[in-house]
Amino acid sequence: MSLSASARIDIERFWTTIDRSGEIGVGRPGGLSRLTLSDADKQVRDEFVDWCRQAGLSIRIDGIGNIFARRAGQDDTLPPVVMGSHLDTQVNGGRFDGIAGVLGGLEVCRALDALGHRTRRPLEIVNWTNEEGGRFSPPMVGSGCFTGTYTLDWARGRTDDDGVTIGQELERIGYLGEMAESPHPFDAYFEFHIEQGPILDREGTQVGVVTGGFASTGMLVEFRGETAHTGPWPMERRKNALVAGARLLVAVDDLGWEHAGTGGKATGSRLVAWPNKPGILSDWAQAVCDVRHPDPATTEVMAERVRRAIGEAAARTGCTAEILDVWNWGGRIFADELIDGVRDISQGLGYRTQDILSQAGHDAYFVARHAPTAMIFAPCKGGITHNNQELCTREDLEPGLNVLLRAVVARADR
Amino acid sequence: MSLSASARIDIERFWTTIDRSGEIGVGRPGGLSRLTLSDADKQVRDEFVDWCRQAGLSIRIDGIGNIFARRAGQDDTLPPVVMGSHLDTQVNGGRFDGIAGVLGGLEVCRALDALGHRTRRPLEIVNWTNEEGGRFSPPMVGSGCFTGTYTLDWARGRTDDDGVTIGQELERIGYLGEMAESPHPFDAYFEFHIEQGPILDREGTQVGVVTGGFASTGMLVEFRGETAHTGPWPMERRKNALVAGARLLVAVDDLGWEHAGTGGKATGSRLVAWPNKPGILSDWAQAVCDVRHPDPATTEVMAERVRRAIGEAAARTGCTAEILDVWNWGGRIFADELIDGVRDISQGLGYRTQDILSQAGHDAYFVARHAPTAMIFAPCKGGITHNNQELCTREDLEPGLNVLLRAVVARADR
Repeated sequence: MSLSASARIDIERFWTTIDRSGEIGVGRPGGLSRLTLSDADKQVRDEFVDWCRQAGLSIRIDGIGNIFARRAGQDDTLPPVVMGSHLDTQVNGGRFDGIAGVLGGLEVCRALDALGHRTRRPLEIVNWTNEEGGRFSPPMVGSGCFTGTYTLDWARGRTDDDGVTIGQELERIGYLGEMAESPHPFDAYFEFHIEQGPILDREGTQVGVVTGGFASTGMLVEFRGETAHTGPWPMERRKNALVAGARLLVAVDDLGWEHAGTGGKATGSRLVAWPNKPGILSDWAQAVCDVRHPDPATTEVMAERVRRAIGEAAARTGCTAEILDVWNWGGRIFADELIDGVRDISQGLGYRTQDILSQAGHDAYFVARHAPTAMIFAPCKGGITHNNQELCTREDLEPGLNVLLRAVVARADR
Repeated sequence: MSLSASARIDIERFWTTIDRSGEIGVGRPGGLSRLTLSDADKQVRDEFVDWCRQAGLSIRIDGIGNIFARRAGQDDTLPPVVMGSHLDTQVNGGRFDGIAGVLGGLEVCRALDALGHRTRRPLEIVNWTNEEGGRFSPPMVGSGCFTGTYTLDWARGRTDDDGVTIGQELERIGYLGEMAESPHPFDAYFEFHIEQGPILDREGTQVGVVTGGFASTGMLVEFRGETAHTGPWPMERRKNALVAGARLLVAVDDLGWEHAGTGGKATGSRLVAWPNKPGILSDWAQAVCDVRHPDPATTEVMAERVRRAIGEAAARTGCTAEILDVWNWGGRIFADELIDGVRDISQGLGYRTQDILSQAGHDAYFVARHAPTAMIFAPCKGGITHNNQELCTREDLEPGLNVLLRAVVARADR
């Protein structure tokens, strides 16, 4: 049994669910501030689980709080085809980033119920814990843990700025699951997501076929100096770790501008220092920065430039520097057969379609190490995201959701 | 009745008191972390009040928590000669900065008791609230409030990083006094303080005669930008307020190096941003910076350069900037007659003496607007301060304390 040519998701049903999600963890006007494992995250998780159960899905939660909602297949012994993304947001986040991928998976299941279609393989929807990293670092910790990049103990031990751990918060909100730590096999993974960039919207494209990701390298850097008085202490004896961090952030920003003409980005996103007070030089600082470029060789050059900038910032300020963590993602990590399938389906449905690289990090990057993976992008207005003004219309999301429906069924029914 | 030629303070008695103070609010090894209006600040205030009462002094506390301990004069209707400084410290502070001036005043009173000397004018010791600014901004809020630079309501409303106000904390620790807000007249004010710089120690000077302060200008600057994704968002559309703040701090540091050859200093001491998280550009940042130079005209040039750097940091990052606060201090603000008296007394006692400018801010700067004022500096090892390794020996402090004793008595008995 195959889907009829007229089979579609129900965009109004989907929108009702998106709107309900948009009431949970309200932030600045129009936006969400639904930080990982907060009360608001618990609430949206609870509602998501209810919606899934109402749709006849069974729920499992693993040791890092990832939620798997399963729709039985005709042959339930086969590995599932999985759809998903994340329900958490940045502190000033939007109503679609990640959320559209999780609730899109739910809509696919609901649509299949309405169509009376049972796929050969089971389907699963997954909500990954802490994709954003807006409260706990690093981001994508749920998918990273599931795929073995991080150990469960390490991941549970990550702390927020108040020293509260992921493990404590999982327990508090009731999402510390007991599902086996080792990942269960996926037949395939599809992540539907808004582009979070301006390209599709500018070009009037309805569906972005994600062929890979910008090669990206991020670093967590620590500087150590010496406290002293901001007045009498001679410039040549100062070891102001805050200024070391500031020098790194400026060098990284300059690097981004150097490569802007070829689509490169470089960002200083976080700088904390101690004591970070008027009157005293800081003896400790931590900075987070990253570089991204469509060409992996250029990203390597940019990363090397960052390493040199770290040394220069330390030398210039008399501080010592240590790179505490480095993360890399992106490249041509997605499965060609799935990418090709998504492109064919989108074109077959008559949508304006284009290939595109993802510039953001996504759980799909980790999952691609575990199973054949693809992403489907939808446009968002002006590319604005990680901002309460993030905006999508029904017209922006409906095409990609229909592609998701057909791509998942094609994979699950083969 | 004048002091005998052999009259001296008792350095052992003073040291016992300093050592006891050094047990209250212990920080890193050898240092103190006695933040304004903390439990530790309450404890040292309580003990200071006890010591004063044991020495027969009467206590008054004003509306911003400044403690005045009074030793009656032969003519108690005359304005007092006042000694003082502060008992609070930076979060990584030493055991002498400020403390030596308050407990030095107590030692002068104890020495006069031992000598059976009652001065013509009354004496007072003052502990100014929040000199350091290590918890509440701005620094020197107690003396600034007393001298009318800040209103009482405004000063009480200053908050720490957790949003707790000075007024709330004064009430909590029992130091919200009812003494009239308007300042009572001082005949003169003497502040004994460690130099907090390397000059006296390097040159083997026992007593620094403070002829004025480096002309200093500080600013609190706010940048506003826009949150966005650190990945896809094009460089040319970014408004990363954190990077704006970092650019300002680097420009200020460069400015300090430019003027280092003539003794200038420029410091970026604080940078906070929101959300200040990986994955999202910050839309808000606040930076604190200051410039200091022995030549006031050069300080003006440096301050103008900072103003331009603020504009450039904003323009370069697409942010807006606003200078929320500017403070100026320093110059030739102390009373020549008191300065000359301190110099004469020090030389008369045979101490190695030199004129020096203060490079740090002190309560004496505000008090100089209210009464003839002088400062007496003692050396500290290597000039290290605002650091737990701040160190003075008995030999470092005894000469200055003896000068304080004689300068105060000469003034009070005239």
